[in-house]
Amino acid sequence: MARKDNTSYKKTIGLAPGTIFYTGEKTSSDLYIEVFKYNKETYEEKELDAIEAAFSYNTATHITWINVNGLNHTKVIEKIGNHYGLHPLILEDIVNTQHRPKIDEYENYLFVVLKMLYFDKNGELVIEHISCVLGDSFVISFQESDGDVFDPIRSRIRNNKGRIRIMGSDYLLYTLMDAVVDNYFNLIEVMGDKIEELEDELFEKKDDNDITYDIQNLKREILRIRRAVFPLREVVNRLEKIEHKLIVKKTRFYLRDLYDHIIQVSENVEIYRDMIWGLMDMYMTTISNKMNEVMKVLTIIATIFIPLTFLAGIYGMNFENIPELKYKYGYYIFWTVLLIIFIGLIVYFKRRKWL
Amino acid sequence: MARKDNTSYKKTIGLAPGTIFYTGEKTSSDLYIEVFKYNKETYEEKELDAIEAAFSYNTATHITWINVNGLNHTKVIEKIGNHYGLHPLILEDIVNTQHRPKIDEYENYLFVVLKMLYFDKNGELVIEHISCVLGDSFVISFQESDGDVFDPIRSRIRNNKGRIRIMGSDYLLYTLMDAVVDNYFNLIEVMGDKIEELEDELFEKKDDNDITYDIQNLKREILRIRRAVFPLREVVNRLEKIEHKLIVKKTRFYLRDLYDHIIQVSENVEIYRDMIWGLMDMYMTTISNKMNEVMKVLTIIATIFIPLTFLAGIYGMNFENIPELKYKYGYYIFWTVLLIIFIGLIVYFKRRKWL
Amino acid sequence: MARKDNTSYKKTIGLAPGTIFYTGEKTSSDLYIEVFKYNKETYEEKELDAIEAAFSYNTATHITWINVNGLNHTKVIEKIGNHYGLHPLILEDIVNTQHRPKIDEYENYLFVVLKMLYFDKNGELVIEHISCVLGDSFVISFQESDGDVFDPIRSRIRNNKGRIRIMGSDYLLYTLMDAVVDNYFNLIEVMGDKIEELEDELFEKKDDNDITYDIQNLKREILRIRRAVFPLREVVNRLEKIEHKLIVKKTRFYLRDLYDHIIQVSENVEIYRDMIWGLMDMYMTTISNKMNEVMKVLTIIATIFIPLTFLAGIYGMNFENIPELKYKYGYYIFWTVLLIIFIGLIVYFKRRKWL
Amino acid sequence: MARKDNTSYKKTIGLAPGTIFYTGEKTSSDLYIEVFKYNKETYEEKELDAIEAAFSYNTATHITWINVNGLNHTKVIEKIGNHYGLHPLILEDIVNTQHRPKIDEYENYLFVVLKMLYFDKNGELVIEHISCVLGDSFVISFQESDGDVFDPIRSRIRNNKGRIRIMGSDYLLYTLMDAVVDNYFNLIEVMGDKIEELEDELFEKKDDNDITYDIQNLKREILRIRRAVFPLREVVNRLEKIEHKLIVKKTRFYLRDLYDHIIQVSENVEIYRDMIWGLMDMYMTTISNKMNEVMKVLTIIATIFIPLTFLAGIYGMNFENIPELKYKYGYYIFWTVLLIIFIGLIVYFKRRKWL
Amino acid sequence: MARKDNTSYKKTIGLAPGTIFYTGEKTSSDLYIEVFKYNKETYEEKELDAIEAAFSYNTATHITWINVNGLNHTKVIEKIGNHYGLHPLILEDIVNTQHRPKIDEYENYLFVVLKMLYFDKNGELVIEHISCVLGDSFVISFQESDGDVFDPIRSRIRNNKGRIRIMGSDYLLYTLMDAVVDNYFNLIEVMGDKIEELEDELFEKKDDNDITYDIQNLKREILRIRRAVFPLREVVNRLEKIEHKLIVKKTRFYLRDLYDHIIQVSENVEIYRDMIWGLMDMYMTTISNKMNEVMKVLTIIATIFIPLTFLAGIYGMNFENIPELKYKYGYYIFWTVLLIIFIGLIVYFKRRKWL
Repeated sequence: MARKDNTSYKKTIGLAPGTIFYTGEKTSSDLYIEVFKYNKETYEEKELDAIEAAFSYNTATHITWINVNGLNHTKVIEKIGNHYGLHPLILEDIVNTQHRPKIDEYENYLFVVLKMLYFDKNGELVIEHISCVLGDSFVISFQESDGDVFDPIRSRIRNNKGRIRIMGSDYLLYTLMDAVVDNYFNLIEVMGDKIEELEDELFEKKDDNDITYDIQNLKREILRIRRAVFPLREVVNRLEKIEHKLIVKKTRFYLRDLYDHIIQVSENVEIYRDMIWGLMDMYMTTISNKMNEVMKVLTIIATIFIPLTFLAGIYGMNFENIPELKYKYGYYIFWTVLLIIFIGLIVYFKRRKWL
Repeated sequence: MARKDNTSYKKTIGLAPGTIFYTGEKTSSDLYIEVFKYNKETYEEKELDAIEAAFSYNTATHITWINVNGLNHTKVIEKIGNHYGLHPLILEDIVNTQHRPKIDEYENYLFVVLKMLYFDKNGELVIEHISCVLGDSFVISFQESDGDVFDPIRSRIRNNKGRIRIMGSDYLLYTLMDAVVDNYFNLIEVMGDKIEELEDELFEKKDDNDITYDIQNLKREILRIRRAVFPLREVVNRLEKIEHKLIVKKTRFYLRDLYDHIIQVSENVEIYRDMIWGLMDMYMTTISNKMNEVMKVLTIIATIFIPLTFLAGIYGMNFENIPELKYKYGYYIFWTVLLIIFIGLIVYFKRRKWL
Repeated sequence: MARKDNTSYKKTIGLAPGTIFYTGEKTSSDLYIEVFKYNKETYEEKELDAIEAAFSYNTATHITWINVNGLNHTKVIEKIGNHYGLHPLILEDIVNTQHRPKIDEYENYLFVVLKMLYFDKNGELVIEHISCVLGDSFVISFQESDGDVFDPIRSRIRNNKGRIRIMGSDYLLYTLMDAVVDNYFNLIEVMGDKIEELEDELFEKKDDNDITYDIQNLKREILRIRRAVFPLREVVNRLEKIEHKLIVKKTRFYLRDLYDHIIQVSENVEIYRDMIWGLMDMYMTTISNKMNEVMKVLTIIATIFIPLTFLAGIYGMNFENIPELKYKYGYYIFWTVLLIIFIGLIVYFKRRKWL
Repeated sequence: MARKDNTSYKKTIGLAPGTIFYTGEKTSSDLYIEVFKYNKETYEEKELDAIEAAFSYNTATHITWINVNGLNHTKVIEKIGNHYGLHPLILEDIVNTQHRPKIDEYENYLFVVLKMLYFDKNGELVIEHISCVLGDSFVISFQESDGDVFDPIRSRIRNNKGRIRIMGSDYLLYTLMDAVVDNYFNLIEVMGDKIEELEDELFEKKDDNDITYDIQNLKREILRIRRAVFPLREVVNRLEKIEHKLIVKKTRFYLRDLYDHIIQVSENVEIYRDMIWGLMDMYMTTISNKMNEVMKVLTIIATIFIPLTFLAGIYGMNFENIPELKYKYGYYIFWTVLLIIFIGLIVYFKRRKWL
Repeated sequence: MARKDNTSYKKTIGLAPGTIFYTGEKTSSDLYIEVFKYNKETYEEKELDAIEAAFSYNTATHITWINVNGLNHTKVIEKIGNHYGLHPLILEDIVNTQHRPKIDEYENYLFVVLKMLYFDKNGELVIEHISCVLGDSFVISFQESDGDVFDPIRSRIRNNKGRIRIMGSDYLLYTLMDAVVDNYFNLIEVMGDKIEELEDELFEKKDDNDITYDIQNLKREILRIRRAVFPLREVVNRLEKIEHKLIVKKTRFYLRDLYDHIIQVSENVEIYRDMIWGLMDMYMTTISNKMNEVMKVLTIIATIFIPLTFLAGIYGMNFENIPELKYKYGYYIFWTVLLIIFIGLIVYFKRRKWL
């Protein structure tokens, strides 16, 4: 399972820089392009068959959001690149799903890579590659497949809720990133539940199934989340700080706020990491405690019965001259002695708090 | 319980930035507004029903402190925001109880978020969200519910004790923060006691209840405290350093002092963290020591009686021709041999320091 | 095996700085020089017997790539150094295979050291020393032996694929470095597989062979990879940032991209490091779990049969007056009692989840 | 004992900033004021009853050192503060024994807090709070009680040894700090001895007393030392770097030297910390080794005698037809077989290196 | 043995700053002064009885290297200090063998402290204190005793090999430092061998001697090496960067190279540190594995023979009416049953992979 992150590395080794090669697993996703065009007064929403239709949308009076789903359609992405004059390395990174979050500044546009994280129905962590190009009056977002966290944004555009319709394209970019980061809190919550579950298994239930595997799995997940979330701090921080004509001052407050959220997620990730690493130690003490318990039972049984069996063995000997054997009440005296030893040992164990 | 910190994340996901949504648990707190208005000569103290009454208080000749309890009353907070021209993101953060300590600088006011920490009557760590807005001649503080650490400040205003009545609103902000940080020392002390208690349980008492759970709990608490306290260092440091018309030079000395206190708390938190992490190792050695003790008892008993039982078994055999059985004093010789073996083994164990 | 990295240190101790002494193990490699000379329109490819032939290649109209294989031929390297006016310390570092990745800036050329990593057919990690000199219109690369990761570049030059034929010598240097870094992803993948294998061995198979050795081996490998990869971050970062006439602006975008790739590799290395360190803990719990299992079997057997054997011992005694022995059904009653005890203990173990 | 550091926190919570409240334990120390007044030619030494007498000492021609013992006499400290115009926060910190080392710069004076560390006669680590005010031609030092490390300085002033009489008040401050830091090396040595002792106990002696407690104690001590020593690095570094009229250039060389010493102490503290943390692991292996030894004894005894006892049991059976019982030498053959088994097992254990 | 580093601290506590007090252990070393005087054309080499003879050597046309062995001869060092106008603190540090590596810049000279490391014939790590003063046309080096790593340099001066005779005094200083650092690689190699040896002991040999002690020793050694090597990075880095008339540009390339070497040593030290810390964990698993093995033997023996002994006990009972005892082939049937049980258990253990 460690392999999961790397399956596609091999395919791209040796390719020329700037080659557009989709490295993800969803190689048969349908192409799905949706376009929003809005300003303070009006808005328009369309689903497109071909990307060319979107190119006419760009105007000075509207903000345009082009959302492209299906990174396997590299031809379409190349067309977009040509139309907007994007650098070949950007096109490569749009489809390179292994790429870490980053921000690239060009004269006329900004390029942001980030990661959408969720648990699929099998409870497996999925990391989806999202990239955004911010231009003068447009934002183009790229996703691996449809189904995303942008529905609240769509609804805010449609219903003219919040500030989105009166702000520029930089605010739109912020909103998209904010939606992705907001969703991280879901993830954090699930991770918290998983840790709690494991702790409960460790403490309360007595069954013996090995949870080392589950802990190792959690470790891997938190490490993958960390890798997706941590670089984003730097991305947003830089986005807030850079002097670029596309980022207006009013938006910086929002980016600062976004930065605070990512820090909050990161802190949670670090805390959970500490907790998960601690689980192994806890498990170890649990095992040792169980063994202690087992050993005590063994020791109590052995310590009581081994001496008694010895005594019985004595009077099972065939010496011709064992006077005790001939006493009338020898057998009963014997039992009395056994009982005294037995009670003495029980008292001893009670004192040692073994019983 | 890991979930405790995150219960409210889900509800806010998808909301537009700047939406005022209370994320805490005290959704039915009463609204409680108190106002202090003072200068060198006079002071006035009032409890208000409606926030509007407070708006008339602001004058150039007095310092006004408005203390709002009940973050669930988002309407009231919105009104305050409108009256004082606060940024929507600030209003969002006032009621976002999950937000980490921070400072935001605006042209006409400063916004500070911090955390009040205490253990409730059940011994559970409670983290209460406090935020303060510092304006020209006023401070507005927001809390989740009444009951706070500000009583000494109230009394100092009433009795004109200390410097509070002769200093500006920035000193008032400092005093509020100082009161919160002062209270951290209480917390530190309780944590120290808890660690000591666990250590005593580890060393002195012999009962077997599993303290892994308690250690894990302590870990979680110290991590939560850490998260609430550590960002405050940066906040106070920045507050001391920024060039802002609202912070006068005289107050900076006090902020420096406050910074020292937070560093001191942080150092204690780090030390306790180290101690708590060490507890698990200590517990592990304690378990192993106990097992060693158990194993020794078992080994001593088994090592003494198994050979003796073997000997008894020998003379319990029914061979027709076992000469020893026919000796007159065979039985007594047998006992003598047993005693010699017994004493020999005892001496052996003494030498090995097992007894 | 820890020695492997250091075998050659001793030989160079005491040599004057700038002495050209090959420190690697491939002391009998054949000398193999290949030269590429190309521009937008034409390209030429040659294999040389003597390095002198290459010196005539340098012209203003072409880019020349001289690839020297066989660092043991120090004479040849000295000749190159003399021809191109390279600093003696550079020549020393070209053949010092122990040297870590670095970049040295001189007025007329840049010198870069990096490491090619691969697993040989025995599965052993091999670290090959590569150094490049970037000049005005040429790049000279030095390797320990032929067989490298540059084939895709050769083919791109031949077929005029990608941008390589229209860009300068700095782009060629970038391409060489990019090929080396691309290959790291292979390595990462193999390491991922190895970790996964060990985890599977830990979890699924029950055989007892000690995997401590394998874990220790993995540790050593990841540490060596780390040492080869991490300094490269700084090298590429500096290459991107420096103001040097040899690095044109257009190439910087590509260097930034290369930097992102190295960061990605580094992150993977760190994650694998964490995973490998965790394996030891996992192994420990696995051992303890097995011991628990063993102890339970022992305890169950002993706890059942020791008391029963004691009872049998009782009725094997030779007291003259043991009434039970004379009961007609004494033997059958005895068996019944045994069975009851037996069943009682089984129930007890079931309850304790030991069975 | 974790509580020891914090006992006094509670008392100061809620006090107004600048309140002079002694937080230490030596609440009944006698007041003891000593004054040194010296220049190149002359020196004077006096013990004072009242602080007022010291105020007349300050002249431009002499350096004055006022050493105040007894921080519980807050009235006296207030008087000093008033006379020299010290900031209220400084007075608070002079008597706040919990305060960490720091330096505060004011226009006319510098304020330094540091910690004197020693082990008392019970071997307990004592941390004594020392603060110094450096003025134009005077230094005032404050201690909790008399008995300090300044005797060599007193003697150097009296005997005009070293440079002290020809240098300014900044050099005097340096000398005081140097004396305190010099004494840390004593501490370091005692810690080294303690660690060595514990290691010896772990390796050589076989007695079973639990040293977890001692290790935990050492941990606590090294953490407390760390907290007292580490901030001093920053203090001295700043003292060397600041532009302040009171620190002349000549003294900076000495401060640099002092800084080197503190770094050296810090490094030792870090190394000891590593060693102490390692002790727990060592102890764990020691316990496990002992258990191994115990288990081996048990296993050897059980493995030898259980089969032999079984054989004896066989021939203790009462089957009517057991032919061996009737052999004339049956008993002797039996013993021979036992001996063979016994020797075989001994050989087996020798081979396994268990004996 | 932890004490070894600190034995001399006590003696210097309380001494005035600048006091020349030798803190090392070689208090009876002979004084041994050697002088090299050379330029491009000529060289001269002399062994001196008195240091005064060396003072006439300084000329503008030659480079002079004065090598002083025997730090216990503090009088001589004082004379040198007076002649060259060295600061008293420098003289103190020359003989303070506890001092960490550092560089001090003065107007007319540079002062460098570093550490020569080697293992003596008993295999004990020795740290020898070396300090160098770099002046206009001379270098003075100070060592604790003769016997050093400078022989290659002597031979290079004599034979005019390398660049040494044509470069300035700064290059000579570099050469001395380079020789010391070169020697670290020897050390690194020995440490590598020691680790490998311990690993082999852990894996292959089965004897039971406790290697905790050896691991702890290695830890201490690597920590001491670390302390001697790590500060040197900063020293050389600063030496390369400072603007000082004594360091010419040409030498900076060599210092950069030296810096690379120290980084390489440091990386190795860090890796070995990681490996050594890991050894303890490995040892722990080895112990646990051994215990597992022991426990299995015990469990197998006990599980096989305890039930069989029980059965034998049954038929050793003296009930009057045990029908089996009267069967003609009862005894043989009994053995058959035993055999079946025996084989069944063997099969069971095979399945569980315990055999």
